[in-house]
Amino acid sequence: MRTRFQLGLDDLRQRLLRMGGLAEQAVDRARQAFVDRDLMRCQMVLEGESLINQAEREIDEAAFDMLAMQQPMAVDLRFILAVTKINADLERVGDQAVNIAERVMDMVELPPADLPVDIARMGTAVSAMVRRALESFIEGKVELAQAVLEMDNVIDRMRDDAFIQLVKTMNERPDIVRQALDALLVARNLERVADHATNIAEDVIFWVQGSDVRHNVHPDADEQDASRPSTRASGV
Amino acid sequence: MRTRFQLGLDDLRQRLLRMGGLAEQAVDRARQAFVDRDLMRCQMVLEGESLINQAEREIDEAAFDMLAMQQPMAVDLRFILAVTKINADLERVGDQAVNIAERVMDMVELPPADLPVDIARMGTAVSAMVRRALESFIEGKVELAQAVLEMDNVIDRMRDDAFIQLVKTMNERPDIVRQALDALLVARNLERVADHATNIAEDVIFWVQGSDVRHNVHPDADEQDASRPSTRASGV
Repeated sequence: MRTRFQLGLDDLRQRLLRMGGLAEQAVDRARQAFVDRDLMRCQMVLEGESLINQAEREIDEAAFDMLAMQQPMAVDLRFILAVTKINADLERVGDQAVNIAERVMDMVELPPADLPVDIARMGTAVSAMVRRALESFIEGKVELAQAVLEMDNVIDRMRDDAFIQLVKTMNERPDIVRQALDALLVARNLERVADHATNIAEDVIFWVQGSDVRHNVHPDADEQDASRPSTRASGV
Repeated sequence: MRTRFQLGLDDLRQRLLRMGGLAEQAVDRARQAFVDRDLMRCQMVLEGESLINQAEREIDEAAFDMLAMQQPMAVDLRFILAVTKINADLERVGDQAVNIAERVMDMVELPPADLPVDIARMGTAVSAMVRRALESFIEGKVELAQAVLEMDNVIDRMRDDAFIQLVKTMNERPDIVRQALDALLVARNLERVADHATNIAEDVIFWVQGSDVRHNVHPDADEQDASRPSTRASGV
């Protein structure tokens, strides 16, 4: 039977996953809005922001209540702290999606321009990073989190390429400077989403490895299975 | 006499202030590097980053230890959670300073260009925001934190102005597109520093107001003076 505290941890985990789903959806919509020059999708991203902000606040409150309720064991404490950090990163992923949507709204007012940048591909790669980072959190697996860190290098390279090509375009085609700038800023926003996914992956590593490291020093730790530092571990 | 726990809270507060000092210094150096086209200062910013990252990790560990040591009262719990969040924001302020330094290193390779943007003024305003946000944290004062939120609107306006003027420059002067783009990206980085200062101010409000709100419901709360929700309050 699961205690009230363990049920609370499960609830926190579920809430964070829903929050992650909202953030990922916002990025997908923003990317699609860019590709299709779709103002309707921009609007959906803007409207979704308040939902994400509300979810963030609720998760913070729930984490606070969990910490206040009783003294959590080391592994649970690290889990709860990781949740609050991941929560903040997901909220900022949502902010980046809003920035992209606003950029698209600017772009749609200008004539379409053929630009040497594959935002769709970069956006897809970035969404995959966010998804993987959340998976590493669900599974509590360092290897998955490490994979996210490696993907970040790929995104950085895509961003650098986009940057070089688009600056060249700006130099050669003064007539489409603004379109090129919009695309460049969207590429930067996507890169920032990738950075947040990286932060999430690092928090997962901090949570998983930290709880392993501290397993032998915490007085309560021997009641736990530190090799599986998920909320499930505390349900043993 | 202060208990071990209270001394721990004092220590956490001091560490965060030092961390804030490092982050603020990084922004100041990056701004100065931009103004003077000073590669030496860029280098100092890059070297300072590892100090900031180390400080972040140590504060997280210290916060974790405080939470693990004993069950903190509600007001202290909120304080510790605010510290971990502010900590993450300060680290990202440091990241933005690094981004600016890298941009300056790109810029210095190009001929100087007279640009319609006052980065120095914007940088000074942004540094002031970070300092005020930290003050609001030290004093535990919502009014100071509110002032930071208002300053953010000023920065956003400066950024919008810079954006409009610099895009115009890019259109009219293809020969200095790259310099204008560098300045535009630095303006964006400064705007992001301001966003982090805003996040810090919001965390201070969450900490101060939340602890007041919860004062009457937490079983231990009547031992505390919730009207002064700082680490000093727990030393009553």
